[in-house]
Amino acid sequence: MTPSPASQPEPLKTPSSIARSAEIICVGTELLLGDILNSNAQFLAQALAALGIAHYYQTVVGDNPTRIQQVVTLATERSGSDSKLLLFTGGLGPTPDDLTIETLAALFGAPLVEHPDLLADIEAKFTARGRTMPLSNRKQALLPEGALVLPNPQGTAPGIIWSPRPNLTLMTFPGVPREMQAMWRETAVPYLRDRGWVTTTIVSRMLRFWGISESALAEQVAPYLSQGNPTVAPYASKGEAKLRISAMADSTAAALAQIEPIEAGIRALMQDDCYGTDDDTLASVVGRLLLQRQQTVAVAESCTGGGLGQLLTDIAGSSAYFHGGVIAYANRVKVNLLKVDAAALEAQGAVSAIVAEQMALGVKALLHTDWALSITGIAGPGGGSPDKPVGLVYIGLATPSGEVVSYRHEFSGYRGRDWVRQLSALSALDALRRNLL
Amino acid sequence: MTPSPASQPEPLKTPSSIARSAEIICVGTELLLGDILNSNAQFLAQALAALGIAHYYQTVVGDNPTRIQQVVTLATERSGSDSKLLLFTGGLGPTPDDLTIETLAALFGAPLVEHPDLLADIEAKFTARGRTMPLSNRKQALLPEGALVLPNPQGTAPGIIWSPRPNLTLMTFPGVPREMQAMWRETAVPYLRDRGWVTTTIVSRMLRFWGISESALAEQVAPYLSQGNPTVAPYASKGEAKLRISAMADSTAAALAQIEPIEAGIRALMQDDCYGTDDDTLASVVGRLLLQRQQTVAVAESCTGGGLGQLLTDIAGSSAYFHGGVIAYANRVKVNLLKVDAAALEAQGAVSAIVAEQMALGVKALLHTDWALSITGIAGPGGGSPDKPVGLVYIGLATPSGEVVSYRHEFSGYRGRDWVRQLSALSALDALRRNLL
Repeated sequence: MTPSPASQPEPLKTPSSIARSAEIICVGTELLLGDILNSNAQFLAQALAALGIAHYYQTVVGDNPTRIQQVVTLATERSGSDSKLLLFTGGLGPTPDDLTIETLAALFGAPLVEHPDLLADIEAKFTARGRTMPLSNRKQALLPEGALVLPNPQGTAPGIIWSPRPNLTLMTFPGVPREMQAMWRETAVPYLRDRGWVTTTIVSRMLRFWGISESALAEQVAPYLSQGNPTVAPYASKGEAKLRISAMADSTAAALAQIEPIEAGIRALMQDDCYGTDDDTLASVVGRLLLQRQQTVAVAESCTGGGLGQLLTDIAGSSAYFHGGVIAYANRVKVNLLKVDAAALEAQGAVSAIVAEQMALGVKALLHTDWALSITGIAGPGGGSPDKPVGLVYIGLATPSGEVVSYRHEFSGYRGRDWVRQLSALSALDALRRNLL
Repeated sequence: MTPSPASQPEPLKTPSSIARSAEIICVGTELLLGDILNSNAQFLAQALAALGIAHYYQTVVGDNPTRIQQVVTLATERSGSDSKLLLFTGGLGPTPDDLTIETLAALFGAPLVEHPDLLADIEAKFTARGRTMPLSNRKQALLPEGALVLPNPQGTAPGIIWSPRPNLTLMTFPGVPREMQAMWRETAVPYLRDRGWVTTTIVSRMLRFWGISESALAEQVAPYLSQGNPTVAPYASKGEAKLRISAMADSTAAALAQIEPIEAGIRALMQDDCYGTDDDTLASVVGRLLLQRQQTVAVAESCTGGGLGQLLTDIAGSSAYFHGGVIAYANRVKVNLLKVDAAALEAQGAVSAIVAEQMALGVKALLHTDWALSITGIAGPGGGSPDKPVGLVYIGLATPSGEVVSYRHEFSGYRGRDWVRQLSALSALDALRRNLL
């Protein structure tokens, strides 16, 4: 099965997308060797989409001047008379195989000019770290005549913004993602706005769901999926279903105003299955709800081995509501520390509703919290049986009123140990979330 | 700073690399929108490098027949009279925007032919899941005349292996990484070996280090970094330094024989700093050492919140040596459950050597294990002070003889909460590893 391309609408086209387009060209032999995952291409692709700038090609090429020139020539030729923006990543370092700038200068017949202010800046960056600038870094201050500096506040390799001929703009970025992203945001985007590249704004909001499959979600919100602007597209990753609402408008405020009724409509339809938006996680949402109620939680974990506690403490400030827990991997720990009934454990097995419930009650009593979550299951690959297959997991939840409930899950064991453990921890958070609502 | 390109040797060139080369062409509008990270390109790049097949270009193009044809034409033209292998990913699904196969058929003037056996196989896959095959999937049984089937055991979308003209071989894979990788290993690689594409073998071994920086490691093994075959190249990721030894030879056995003395030499130089090779993790190595000694371990975690237990239980079968632990996020849990001295905690603070040591002793007594590890630190972003900055972490280790030691670390707090927590958990494993050796 392919990842539901049918349900993905065509990208929103801006009025200017016919006459203007961008290409992404990533330079680096390490990409051709597969040493590096090309996350820069994804970042720039998302960034272009967010600005409404069309882009139809991405190319990866090694640190080879002939092949770099061939790729650039091709990219400029296939745009015809359109305005073209070429975004380069990589090849700006100080070593002999970092060739992007000199190769572009040679291709467009421009001499390289040393920028004394850049050289001073690079030297200062080395001095600030108590080091002397190696001679090789001197070449990073050489830029093609006529090119603007694209400053790199976080590293020594500056980029350029250069129009070597009409209707063609080149921007170069270093391969280091952190540096590239800062340069994009701080200099490239304002430049593109000033030059009329950004004639419209696309704003997206991701709605996040738990406890419903992507296909079931898509079915329930089907009417929304076929509409034009804003578009609504379903996604799935790591057991979670998502809907992305994208609106195109003249301003961010106008786009947000378009998104609002769509989001409200979907939320009314999906109720508690929608747990949050954008950067929300189940752990952050649970944390917010506990803070609101000024309540606390503890965990008792068997098959997840600490993974649930880790998720809860991913959130800065979680100490306000998370007190801790017991990792009860061995049955002896379940009995001795959590006071699980040894006879029940023997009769029903460690992976059972009764053990999950007693683990939750046990850790709640031990840590004196308002809520307690427990997880016991078979993460695999071994340990399964016809009765209790790999992927069978019980989640226990002890409530402030002293009650306890348990939930039975059968996750796809064939998807592996990590999958079962991750879905177990997230499902436990979701159980608490729904009880907090 | 760029990621040490100077220290990366040129890729090994095979004798046949002049006359034969591959290109990777990834098809999918979702890649142009940045919805998906192009991990397929990295997988295929690594796979080609491992087989010694040269590749100089990767291209991403949307689900658009005209542009796909333009990219394919270009790729075939730039190979001149060389033998060319084009690897396609994506666009094999059942929906109208999955166009790879029909676009290639049209470009090379071949009619599409229905394969009844493929159709039966696709229908059977739906039946096995209790579903009826949608009509749209029928088109996945249509292949260009003369193309071989590249079977997809894990999904409905088959690929093709097709030589539409001399010196040109096309292979298509679905975009789903799991399916693509299985098809590559099970069918594509044997095919390429049979057809003489693989005239040599490159075997790599990754040596893994903890407790030493990439630059310090590179300095110590400097003589190895400048040699030819095998090559040795340094890498770094997530706090870990690595050396990749790559040997090119006529056979795997011969390549391994070349690697062996290099590995032995580096190990003799670096001693215990080298913790393992290839798929080893600190958790798997610690697990192996505990199994050998038939000893057990427990954990007491504060700032990592369960992350150390999760790392230990990543390993299937870890129940043989990992009994569990206490997540002591709140100070009250440290005192009540782990019997940390309240006065010492008050005087020295929760992030101190004495508290780390008492946490380790406490959980060891509670769970009756041979060893116990503890972690207490300031993960940030808040909670730091001039005396105790974000990133300050104490690790405690209680030994079978009843002794306890602690280790003080200052991780780079500015790299964020996740970084501090991850390095804390891994450093705790490393402390146990060195004590087990």
